[in-house]
Amino acid sequence: VAEPHDQPVVSAAWVDGIEATQLSVFDRGLHYGDGLFETIACPRGSPRLLERHLARLRRGCERLALDPPSPEVLAREIRALAAGGGRCIVKLLLTRGASRVRGYRPTQREPSTRVLLRYSWPVYDPSLALSGVRVRTAGVRLGENPALAGIKHLNRLEQVLAAAEPQDADVSEALMLSSSGAVISGIMSNVFMVDDSQLVTPDVERCGVAGIMRELVLEAASSSGIPVQVRRLGPEELTGAAELFLTSALIGVRPVRELDGRLYTIGAVTRRVQGLMATQLAEGAGSGHA
Amino acid sequence: VAEPHDQPVVSAAWVDGIEATQLSVFDRGLHYGDGLFETIACPRGSPRLLERHLARLRRGCERLALDPPSPEVLAREIRALAAGGGRCIVKLLLTRGASRVRGYRPTQREPSTRVLLRYSWPVYDPSLALSGVRVRTAGVRLGENPALAGIKHLNRLEQVLAAAEPQDADVSEALMLSSSGAVISGIMSNVFMVDDSQLVTPDVERCGVAGIMRELVLEAASSSGIPVQVRRLGPEELTGAAELFLTSALIGVRPVRELDGRLYTIGAVTRRVQGLMATQLAEGAGSGHA
Repeated sequence: VAEPHDQPVVSAAWVDGIEATQLSVFDRGLHYGDGLFETIACPRGSPRLLERHLARLRRGCERLALDPPSPEVLAREIRALAAGGGRCIVKLLLTRGASRVRGYRPTQREPSTRVLLRYSWPVYDPSLALSGVRVRTAGVRLGENPALAGIKHLNRLEQVLAAAEPQDADVSEALMLSSSGAVISGIMSNVFMVDDSQLVTPDVERCGVAGIMRELVLEAASSSGIPVQVRRLGPEELTGAAELFLTSALIGVRPVRELDGRLYTIGAVTRRVQGLMATQLAEGAGSGHA
Repeated sequence: VAEPHDQPVVSAAWVDGIEATQLSVFDRGLHYGDGLFETIACPRGSPRLLERHLARLRRGCERLALDPPSPEVLAREIRALAAGGGRCIVKLLLTRGASRVRGYRPTQREPSTRVLLRYSWPVYDPSLALSGVRVRTAGVRLGENPALAGIKHLNRLEQVLAAAEPQDADVSEALMLSSSGAVISGIMSNVFMVDDSQLVTPDVERCGVAGIMRELVLEAASSSGIPVQVRRLGPEELTGAAELFLTSALIGVRPVRELDGRLYTIGAVTRRVQGLMATQLAEGAGSGHA
């Protein structure tokens, strides 16, 4: 049985601003995973944390030397697509576009292609934010490449293989280690450990994605006087951790109650971070107006 | 200026056996690079080494738990597409297919999608096989992941970034190191070193692709009494090597005359391997009849 949050179904698709469900077979996104994506929560029919998503997309474009689309056009299209669907998820894919010439080397003149997809809002069990989730450690690891680390690119086979591993039906997420054995993140979330009232989250210098909600938690914790560390995190440190939680733009902050059979308490720091995030999101921090 | 062999232009496209230039925007090949590819030389309007390409594809399907298409159907389609174009290249992309459900986890029920593209034959400078090519070392490295190593999957951003690095117009290829510093391969070829009359090529256990021509060279060398080693290869070993050459299904065997400004002689072992391959290909070893 797949997880509830894996089940959202697509209800609309736009390619370069036009309603379409097809894309060129010459697209470099298909051939090489040569592109980026963002998954944007729209809990009330409008995109949450949109400016942060667009800022990360822009950083990804710089890293890959992708032609960046106009942020105004993107924002307008995302808002328009979200508005049609009540609460929903909008996924944006940005690729280096179609090329009829074979070969890895970009010409540097490719106009990028943008695909916007609207998915139904996931059916989350509301008790998970309260009572926490079960998590396992994935067998598949993340290869290390600083050139690709941090950005949300389209080379996601490691995540596909990790997600395909067998797991109990009520396990929500799997933690992934790097090839050199550090804890990096969940398959689709970032991870924080509470250790001696201090927050620790893995750096994403060699692999992993710099999550939007991770960024927001780091900022809010710092400005609220909760000490934070971003550093290499060994799996053995999780054993002794007081609390663990996961973050993502879709799930927000979710406590971990069990990792590989080991039980965790959901403590004061996790609850405080959840409270901070609730305030931040209510104030519209994500939309850049905070 | 891009390399001649980067310039082939597409002239026909089939999706699941039907002439088409578009693919579903829900395809997991686009979303995650969740698929495989093969690039098949058709020097006389018919696919060379087809059985070996299909065997590697099948190994990739097993690794990714992809629904393998009928090899008979694939072979028939590839032959039909190649026959229409004189000498050409046929690229096959096989993805886990379209999914309207969001999320990394495959349902295990996805019917795969096959895309066949016919490209014009590259305009190779015929003197390169004789006088060798200039090669540089790429700045971008290959992340290590045994789960993805060896197979020809669609997560190719590392190759795209390496190919986008600035280089002299007559540099043909760039060698890529692994994140742990071993020599692995060219961006689009495998590499062999001749050391004390012995052939050495890097193992592809942690990254890299097990090339069709690499496999053929290893087999032919072994059965011709040339000692071969497949092992970890340090970049410092290349400095002392007597000869270097590159292999791929498209270029065959190509001597290296210069690597990062260091000159190499094109010696007897490289010439002997070139001769062996010419015989093998003429005998149709690749078509599985040898």
